[in-house]
Amino acid sequence: MKLTLTAVENIPMVEPGDDLVDQICAGLESMGESLLDGDILVLAQKIVSKAENRYVDLKTVVPSAEAIALGHEVDKDPRKVQVILDESNEVVRKRPGVLIVEHRLGFVAANAGIDQSNIQQNGVDGDDLCLLLPVDADASAETLRANIRARMGVEVGVVINDSIGRAWRMGTVGLAIGVAGMTALEDYVGGEDIYGRELLVTQVAAADELAAGASLVMGQTTEKAPVVLVRGYRSRANNPEVSGVQPLLRPKAMDMFR
Amino acid sequence: MKLTLTAVENIPMVEPGDDLVDQICAGLESMGESLLDGDILVLAQKIVSKAENRYVDLKTVVPSAEAIALGHEVDKDPRKVQVILDESNEVVRKRPGVLIVEHRLGFVAANAGIDQSNIQQNGVDGDDLCLLLPVDADASAETLRANIRARMGVEVGVVINDSIGRAWRMGTVGLAIGVAGMTALEDYVGGEDIYGRELLVTQVAAADELAAGASLVMGQTTEKAPVVLVRGYRSRANNPEVSGVQPLLRPKAMDMFR
Repeated sequence: MKLTLTAVENIPMVEPGDDLVDQICAGLESMGESLLDGDILVLAQKIVSKAENRYVDLKTVVPSAEAIALGHEVDKDPRKVQVILDESNEVVRKRPGVLIVEHRLGFVAANAGIDQSNIQQNGVDGDDLCLLLPVDADASAETLRANIRARMGVEVGVVINDSIGRAWRMGTVGLAIGVAGMTALEDYVGGEDIYGRELLVTQVAAADELAAGASLVMGQTTEKAPVVLVRGYRSRANNPEVSGVQPLLRPKAMDMFR
Repeated sequence: MKLTLTAVENIPMVEPGDDLVDQICAGLESMGESLLDGDILVLAQKIVSKAENRYVDLKTVVPSAEAIALGHEVDKDPRKVQVILDESNEVVRKRPGVLIVEHRLGFVAANAGIDQSNIQQNGVDGDDLCLLLPVDADASAETLRANIRARMGVEVGVVINDSIGRAWRMGTVGLAIGVAGMTALEDYVGGEDIYGRELLVTQVAAADELAAGASLVMGQTTEKAPVVLVRGYRSRANNPEVSGVQPLLRPKAMDMFR
């Protein structure tokens, strides 16, 4: 078994309103490549957010008293804190320089995944410009999947990933924030080991593993490689009807670490 | 940029004392493949532990009063709890059915990474047999790396991975527990984004991303695929002198989630 992860070349700088499917198809064509059934496309959250014009100009944000107090407490721009709170269900941890929240889409992330690097828009630069996560990353992934199917007649999976920090370990890893056309959490319930013994660990976060592997190919920023084509992945999930990122999100009541 | 992750074929069932380098070389040869400078080999912890004979027969374990009490509290075999405690620095969380510890090697994992699936030894089967993690997974990785270099004259990286659960998210992902010949944590301190703005998120857990991607290849095959050859990875780390898994482990004093 062989998995290949290939950076889609020649993706232009994405602007609000851009058609990512057009750009991906053109990029693949420029490489002499085309999509096959079963391929997975992993897209960096940043280009999805840019295409969806999820920019916020902080000069337009009026922070609430809560955001001002919290900004003082964690030493962050209260306007940015306001945007983070607006994007969050609740604050999970706060320390000077650190604000970890449950994003309204359900996952735990620092600063609600809001980004200030590698963005520039209408002359508003980093200090005043934020880029939010997509409104609904699963819906974004599903729209991309459906458009690819409609235009090219191929059944692909789509994962939107982001670089996210973790408890217990240093550094970010790519994680899935939106999933379509594949089972995010592979469930081996009822499976057996090679000696016929019932498997105890039965759930594998396949979409997160894809997101992490693709993140290596995306790399950091100097080469722009925001789309990765994954070929050779075959899900062994026995719950193919489940889609979206939700199965990867541990419900708060089941989480011992917040 | 293209990354390929290929399962090394024909790795036999590993027994204590087996020479993994021999087995990997034979497997690669059977595929008409050979190692190149810069390749990364990702090995499943399980085969490293088996080769190092890290089996424990629970029938030989006499649980302490602490292990008996804790076993009762978390509804686990007190003999297994004893083995977990022996392998741990401290208990991080305990609940019925759950025992999450800081392994003596420093990472946080359920049951100290002790495994009871896919093992069988001298007729002692799963219920009485445990397989511990390697004594020193970085040293195991370094020995493999050095042996490959000595025998084949190639400079490869070696990652030993394991499937480990996480805070906040469901399912396991492959994570690195031993690393040699590559920089586990890529550090972009001082780097700039594509608009020349200083990067804020500067550390990427590259070895974990490799471990996760390789885990997909290992996990998908009903055939055993405990070794994955990763080709095409080029570290962009600016701290190449740092080796081992330690940089990936968040010091407890810096961890808000235990």
